[in-house]
Amino acid sequence: MSVALPGIDQIRDAAARIAPYAAITPVLRHEALDRMVGAQLHFKCENLQRGGAFKFRGACNAVWSLTDDEAARGVVTHSSGNHGNALAMAAATRGIAAHVVVPEGAVRAKLEAIERAGAILHRCAATTAAREAKAAEVQQATGATLVHPYADTRVMAGQGTVVLELLQQSPQLDAIITPVGGGGLSSGCAIAAHAIDASLSMFGAEPSGADDAARSLALGARIDALVPDTVCDGLRTLIGEPNFAALREHRVEIITVSDEEAIAAMKLLWQSLKVVVEVSSATVFAAVLKQRERFAGRRIGLVLTGGNVDIDALPW
Amino acid sequence: MSVALPGIDQIRDAAARIAPYAAITPVLRHEALDRMVGAQLHFKCENLQRGGAFKFRGACNAVWSLTDDEAARGVVTHSSGNHGNALAMAAATRGIAAHVVVPEGAVRAKLEAIERAGAILHRCAATTAAREAKAAEVQQATGATLVHPYADTRVMAGQGTVVLELLQQSPQLDAIITPVGGGGLSSGCAIAAHAIDASLSMFGAEPSGADDAARSLALGARIDALVPDTVCDGLRTLIGEPNFAALREHRVEIITVSDEEAIAAMKLLWQSLKVVVEVSSATVFAAVLKQRERFAGRRIGLVLTGGNVDIDALPW
Repeated sequence: MSVALPGIDQIRDAAARIAPYAAITPVLRHEALDRMVGAQLHFKCENLQRGGAFKFRGACNAVWSLTDDEAARGVVTHSSGNHGNALAMAAATRGIAAHVVVPEGAVRAKLEAIERAGAILHRCAATTAAREAKAAEVQQATGATLVHPYADTRVMAGQGTVVLELLQQSPQLDAIITPVGGGGLSSGCAIAAHAIDASLSMFGAEPSGADDAARSLALGARIDALVPDTVCDGLRTLIGEPNFAALREHRVEIITVSDEEAIAAMKLLWQSLKVVVEVSSATVFAAVLKQRERFAGRRIGLVLTGGNVDIDALPW
Repeated sequence: MSVALPGIDQIRDAAARIAPYAAITPVLRHEALDRMVGAQLHFKCENLQRGGAFKFRGACNAVWSLTDDEAARGVVTHSSGNHGNALAMAAATRGIAAHVVVPEGAVRAKLEAIERAGAILHRCAATTAAREAKAAEVQQATGATLVHPYADTRVMAGQGTVVLELLQQSPQLDAIITPVGGGGLSSGCAIAAHAIDASLSMFGAEPSGADDAARSLALGARIDALVPDTVCDGLRTLIGEPNFAALREHRVEIITVSDEEAIAAMKLLWQSLKVVVEVSSATVFAAVLKQRERFAGRRIGLVLTGGNVDIDALPW
């Protein structure tokens, strides 16, 4: 795979391209949580994005980057849920077909949302290889353009718009932390952040049961043989190649948290911040809680990535 | 009780007075919910207000309306939870004492929040008479100023700022709906709304197990002998005298919903809008769902009043 990293110009173009369709999500502050951590927390609520996750940004940028001829043949992707939903919604804004390959074991609420958004579902086994094979098959049959969930220049550029927006809303941040799964968000955000302010500290949060980005960065080479075991269903994906390259280049530091820490942070966010966030999103707050001495007194942007939760099966 | 209704000037003064302390809460939109209802829904998220409820607005206005001499003797109130918490937080912004009389059976999460905010709790029986007696006792002992949860000009003015803000964020509304408990919010909002646009339709949502405002308006006289029986703990209060007068004067129409309807609406808001709202707040959405034909095609502001929920005891 040789996928180019987006530059800041492509991220700014993406922001203009998605502006008619994406929501400007609020940044929430919370006095008591600030006191608890001893830092200034700026929660960027992408759970309030269209489709309930930041993924709409990248998908929307990809869909509206297509030529009319390409668009007419539709788009296809494989996704554990939020990206599939986002691509279906983005395709609907352009009136084109979306094919979504979904692995066994995906969260029911997410699959229902994808179908409601009008996509055609294609089921496959829950391995990265099986997903990619199935997507290639659909691509060949339909001529649809593959929109990879994270190893895609247009997608990374779209996800990077989160940071453009966050730094307009909260201009004085010292650090930004995002969850790390495939790395579409963390790479786009790191590129956007450092183009605006090279001194910003960039962090990623990973569940310890899917800490391939942490291990890969420590090793200096991308691990691709880890079997994720975590309740954070949005972060079970291994980091992509271009995404890993971006994290290295931008010295993104990974903090790993246990499933228990992520669940406790999720519950605290529901209770205090009054927002419904997925356990994957809560890893960023869990990371700050876990290493609060190093964040003490700093102004931190925390990207809450999504809120697509099966409300009848809460993890506590 | 003879409490004057606030005018629009007092509501505008309140907005200026609380601006340094209160949050400007976001208005959320949701395409799929709009489609479901067949109307344009503008959700004013007061669950994201400081303290997790709109109540901070009225309490803050009351606290900062006091003279320095009055302030030095503190404030006192009786409240099922959110107002007590709000008054404690508001008092803290001025560095003065807050005494809060709480009835037996109040939601645990709310009492803990009040204590964390630094108030002194005084427990009493769960009747309106017992609460008022206990508050009078504290008032006499300390010289504190009573800040009634709803039958108070300063409190009504503060709550009315919700509508000032909402109409700035969503200027083209046809109708606004708020929950109705004691009526502090609904009266303040009706006064503010009609001063800005006399053609706005104002609605209230009440649980059928505490439908005293609906009955009172139908009868043309305020009922004060109903024993509330509803899961909506924030709406168990009977409507106050000045509040009833305002609802009559402004032709606020009440829609009653069952507890089951409110719970279903609450769940739908959590799942779709990704916000944590109390069941009392969900009555407004339940009311619109119940009478969707009359709201069809209209632009409706729905005030989501609070998000202080015991997350370990969800009603579904």
